[in-house]
Amino acid sequence: MAYEKEKRRRSAAEQDSTLIEGRNAVLETLRAGRAVDKVFLAEGARGGDIAAEARRRGIPVVACDRRKLDHMSPTGSHQGVIAQIAAQEYVSLDDIFRVAEERGEPPLVVVCDGIEDPHNLGAIIRSAETAGAHGVIIPKRRAVGLTAAVARAAAGALAYVGIHKAGNLASTLDELKERGLWLFGAEADGTVSLYDAAFARPTAIVIGSEGQGLSRLTRDKCDYIVSIPMRGKVNSLNASNAAAVMLFEAVRRRMQA
Amino acid sequence: MAYEKEKRRRSAAEQDSTLIEGRNAVLETLRAGRAVDKVFLAEGARGGDIAAEARRRGIPVVACDRRKLDHMSPTGSHQGVIAQIAAQEYVSLDDIFRVAEERGEPPLVVVCDGIEDPHNLGAIIRSAETAGAHGVIIPKRRAVGLTAAVARAAAGALAYVGIHKAGNLASTLDELKERGLWLFGAEADGTVSLYDAAFARPTAIVIGSEGQGLSRLTRDKCDYIVSIPMRGKVNSLNASNAAAVMLFEAVRRRMQA
Repeated sequence: MAYEKEKRRRSAAEQDSTLIEGRNAVLETLRAGRAVDKVFLAEGARGGDIAAEARRRGIPVVACDRRKLDHMSPTGSHQGVIAQIAAQEYVSLDDIFRVAEERGEPPLVVVCDGIEDPHNLGAIIRSAETAGAHGVIIPKRRAVGLTAAVARAAAGALAYVGIHKAGNLASTLDELKERGLWLFGAEADGTVSLYDAAFARPTAIVIGSEGQGLSRLTRDKCDYIVSIPMRGKVNSLNASNAAAVMLFEAVRRRMQA
Repeated sequence: MAYEKEKRRRSAAEQDSTLIEGRNAVLETLRAGRAVDKVFLAEGARGGDIAAEARRRGIPVVACDRRKLDHMSPTGSHQGVIAQIAAQEYVSLDDIFRVAEERGEPPLVVVCDGIEDPHNLGAIIRSAETAGAHGVIIPKRRAVGLTAAVARAAAGALAYVGIHKAGNLASTLDELKERGLWLFGAEADGTVSLYDAAFARPTAIVIGSEGQGLSRLTRDKCDYIVSIPMRGKVNSLNASNAAAVMLFEAVRRRMQA
């Protein structure tokens, strides 16, 4: 039932094992070099040392209302600061290319350009893993990280497919191209039909955000804009559904090749 | 941000326009013949007349704890009874076949065998509409109906693709077969590969529930069990991702045919 689902989801979020709270705990977590996705700092809270440490490590600091922290807090005693830890450590681009090489396959990666919904990101990671992709790339900012909700939606796939976090998505896309990948962006007005896309080559499938689709900059970097044929009146798919359709078209092309 | 998403979702649920509460309002809604998915009745509440009316119309009555109603209630004054209205009226099987005939296409329908997550059902409806499917069939019991959350996830597609609600899914599957459809169930251990499935014929794509997959009875009714090739270690896709992959493979086959 919809209602029960919502409630279960909420109580799971309340027990979120990826949230660390309190001044000392957050500072030690940062100093230990753990994969922290974001630090939430209440306006007016003491936290100059924490913010400085986070910035030194390139971790976004989000200033927010204290009530937001009250709502997120697992125990209620956050002292104005909560760190969001990644449910899984991130990997490097080299790690992703190494997996492809070890398997003797042309690289297949998924790039998520700003996915905000944890269920979508989790489902994309799950589909990428089942399609045999070698890695998934997500941006550091303006997107959901590897939260507990993402891990749940990924249904175990986080343990088997490497996730790379890009500090600057545009330069990561450039690097993928330098390393021989073709970038296929998904958009309704694409010039290449899904079933004609040459996914057997080294491929990055680039998925836009739920609301905006591909950002202008990302779109300009793509070698091809692929359109999934739309036979109805609604002219776009849910982001994870679009990723799955493209991934399994890549599986088909690679089986033929 | 994940957290903001959760909160937005929650407040949307609280203003759910598909919930009608209070003894008189629910009774009148039932008598008016509106598409009611379920009636929630608090244990110990007066509601014999409401339960009788719901049963007469074949609408499930769910006995539950009063606190559950308190939590669901948009206004807080539910008097122990809340009706869940469908966000869109349901259609008949004939309506679905008529759409296929009008378009001059072999029927393509999606059957959902017990999808519980509103985001999944909404995404399936959205993918079905964009793939040009002629209808979606959902069971009356043990599954989410057309709630406001489903309508949101369907992103407008509910207005363009007919949803049929089956009182008895097994006999509906029999009727689909009698009317010439081939039933393709999706399962990890299927005997037909996705890319060999003859989806250009009159087709019903049958998707199992998130936790259990296809029920035994449904599976036995299927003409083919189709397996989506699994190239990783996780051996199943999210239900809506699986539906999208099969639907767009059907689009490909139909473009070739």
